[in-house]
Amino acid sequence: METITFLTDFGLQDDFVGVCRGVMKRIAPQAQVIDVTHGIAPQAVLQGALVLARAIPYLPSGVHLAVVDPGVGSERRAAAVRTAAGRVFVGPDNGLLMQAADREGVEEARSLTNGSYHLDRVSRTFHARDLFAPVAAHLAAGVAFGDLGDEIDPESLVRLALPLARVEAEELVATVLDVDRFGNLGLNVSSDDVEALGVGDGGTVELAFELTPYFAVVGETYADAARGELIVYEDSYGAWAIAINGGNAAKLTEAGVGDEVRIRPI
Amino acid sequence: METITFLTDFGLQDDFVGVCRGVMKRIAPQAQVIDVTHGIAPQAVLQGALVLARAIPYLPSGVHLAVVDPGVGSERRAAAVRTAAGRVFVGPDNGLLMQAADREGVEEARSLTNGSYHLDRVSRTFHARDLFAPVAAHLAAGVAFGDLGDEIDPESLVRLALPLARVEAEELVATVLDVDRFGNLGLNVSSDDVEALGVGDGGTVELAFELTPYFAVVGETYADAARGELIVYEDSYGAWAIAINGGNAAKLTEAGVGDEVRIRPI
Amino acid sequence: METITFLTDFGLQDDFVGVCRGVMKRIAPQAQVIDVTHGIAPQAVLQGALVLARAIPYLPSGVHLAVVDPGVGSERRAAAVRTAAGRVFVGPDNGLLMQAADREGVEEARSLTNGSYHLDRVSRTFHARDLFAPVAAHLAAGVAFGDLGDEIDPESLVRLALPLARVEAEELVATVLDVDRFGNLGLNVSSDDVEALGVGDGGTVELAFELTPYFAVVGETYADAARGELIVYEDSYGAWAIAINGGNAAKLTEAGVGDEVRIRPI
Repeated sequence: METITFLTDFGLQDDFVGVCRGVMKRIAPQAQVIDVTHGIAPQAVLQGALVLARAIPYLPSGVHLAVVDPGVGSERRAAAVRTAAGRVFVGPDNGLLMQAADREGVEEARSLTNGSYHLDRVSRTFHARDLFAPVAAHLAAGVAFGDLGDEIDPESLVRLALPLARVEAEELVATVLDVDRFGNLGLNVSSDDVEALGVGDGGTVELAFELTPYFAVVGETYADAARGELIVYEDSYGAWAIAINGGNAAKLTEAGVGDEVRIRPI
Repeated sequence: METITFLTDFGLQDDFVGVCRGVMKRIAPQAQVIDVTHGIAPQAVLQGALVLARAIPYLPSGVHLAVVDPGVGSERRAAAVRTAAGRVFVGPDNGLLMQAADREGVEEARSLTNGSYHLDRVSRTFHARDLFAPVAAHLAAGVAFGDLGDEIDPESLVRLALPLARVEAEELVATVLDVDRFGNLGLNVSSDDVEALGVGDGGTVELAFELTPYFAVVGETYADAARGELIVYEDSYGAWAIAINGGNAAKLTEAGVGDEVRIRPI
Repeated sequence: METITFLTDFGLQDDFVGVCRGVMKRIAPQAQVIDVTHGIAPQAVLQGALVLARAIPYLPSGVHLAVVDPGVGSERRAAAVRTAAGRVFVGPDNGLLMQAADREGVEEARSLTNGSYHLDRVSRTFHARDLFAPVAAHLAAGVAFGDLGDEIDPESLVRLALPLARVEAEELVATVLDVDRFGNLGLNVSSDDVEALGVGDGGTVELAFELTPYFAVVGETYADAARGELIVYEDSYGAWAIAINGGNAAKLTEAGVGDEVRIRPI
């Protein structure tokens, strides 16, 4: 339990991440903190949930602290969730933790009502520092899960609905879930969806974003497209994605998170 | 003394922070370095001083390295400052360290004139790497404070003046000191100032930025305002701030660091 | 071999760096990872190579993981390179490693063909996570260099050509190699070039970017120029650079990486 992974929408421009690390260091000097990312878009809970879930298989087991928390200081619960695989997720009960936790099966959940593991003064607007980071650090230092607060029915934890891809008149209607630094567009599309569409490696598809259509090859890596050409491929996390070999697909298509794209075999 | 906290205006786009960490690792392999932030605006000494001062209570005691240094290589002194609480601040003597150090009371200060604790070759433009980081690492590795160089009169250390909020004709004239990633505007306003204004939780104020006035509720957390509405609240560091529930106050008001805002009860 | 330094063009907005750190932590829990930078411009191999080479003298010896990899999943080799000084560089064989490795002299090189040191499933688009980070971590954990895969002739490793500064009709034609966070422009100019130009400290030069000429003083640090004035100086890594005292030279001149500047003594 000595590793704490840490994901937020705080960015690194301010001292918010540094201060949380300081708080954890004071409580659990031996704990190692690994930043998953602090680049989640401000208050983008669904994006945070998806990034956390896809990262987890690559992270050491331990405490997984995650904070994207537009409802801080309101009625939303603060939660810790223990999975069958032995990981513990700590964060707001707004759906952020559950894409990851449900994959492993939830064993037990607690509302973080035991103030002994919070800072002495808990602000209304920075629970990451005053409540979540201290709880994560106390867990890393050996505090028992059951001491964190009142038990919660795991069924009552907030879950987010994901937009589903659908087939309509021989086209696949997908949604952009993620735009990364390289401008690659992650989709809510699985291998099964692509199979249903009936295109294979080397095939060509039309990608229609709102009004503008583009052609893309279907392949496995960027270099399967000519330089500057669009490619549709299964990305390294198993989701389908759109990229440009040597370019930026988000810039070309002007597509962003939540936008729809219609994919047609041609 | 094995923890070094690290704050700069270097950003993370270049290798400057990484190289300083490399230098510290070579000198003090056991030291743990905690990044407070490297997102201070370029050469914004006052902003750096304020962020450092508010972060300190949450950071483990140790060596606190801070570098925002527009005068690097000129006459300005390089300094180390030891407080009554036992913390040691290391950085340029340009006011950056003193908002934090004065809160604990300065016990002793040194000019970093002892070259034994610098790199062999000290450049004229990167003292963080060649002088400040090595000194911080040597301190973490056990070097005595008194060995760092000539004693300085603590009174002679450079201090920065903060703009003060003032009451004028039943309005409070405040200055924006900080704009964070979420667009929240931190003000130079204390609880006393707000009390003098005679508004309490649930009240409404007018915020006048240059020409444009806005209405804001007074509350405790974002959710005390309706979604999309402005709120004035005491932030988690005890300063008053302006935010939008679910939005970005800096974008809406186009206000930045140094801008004035007039706050009137209505 | 317990220190791993880490340089990429991944940025910190996504989980890519965090996931690689997780992978390394699982394989080599004792290893310490130092981020050199993840701010290399997307797919800018030459920039990555230059930043790595200039940082190396300040980094502890160990494993140096670097990934800027536009050809991921194509025919390009994955490589590890051991130098006479005992450092090991790990990354794609596209020139990224060799500015740094050649300075110390290459002793031995391997193609990373031994799958025992990769993740079980290697994607076609994220070799940093699936192949390079695991190899770096295994090296840090004690795996022998010779076990990584087939031997490569060091002469066959890809090297990049650097643009050379040249003297033409009493002016020095230089190229911008680097633009840092402060807007300082790093040039492909050495002290010898400057000497050939016949200007010394306190002299003045004309800087011609495409159509617009500027005047700059020659000096040693920013404060040698008046506030707001351009200065040409030997930067802290020994390359010549252009800055503005208290300002941003890249913004003023609109110059970027790859742009030419003609320097004339006046």
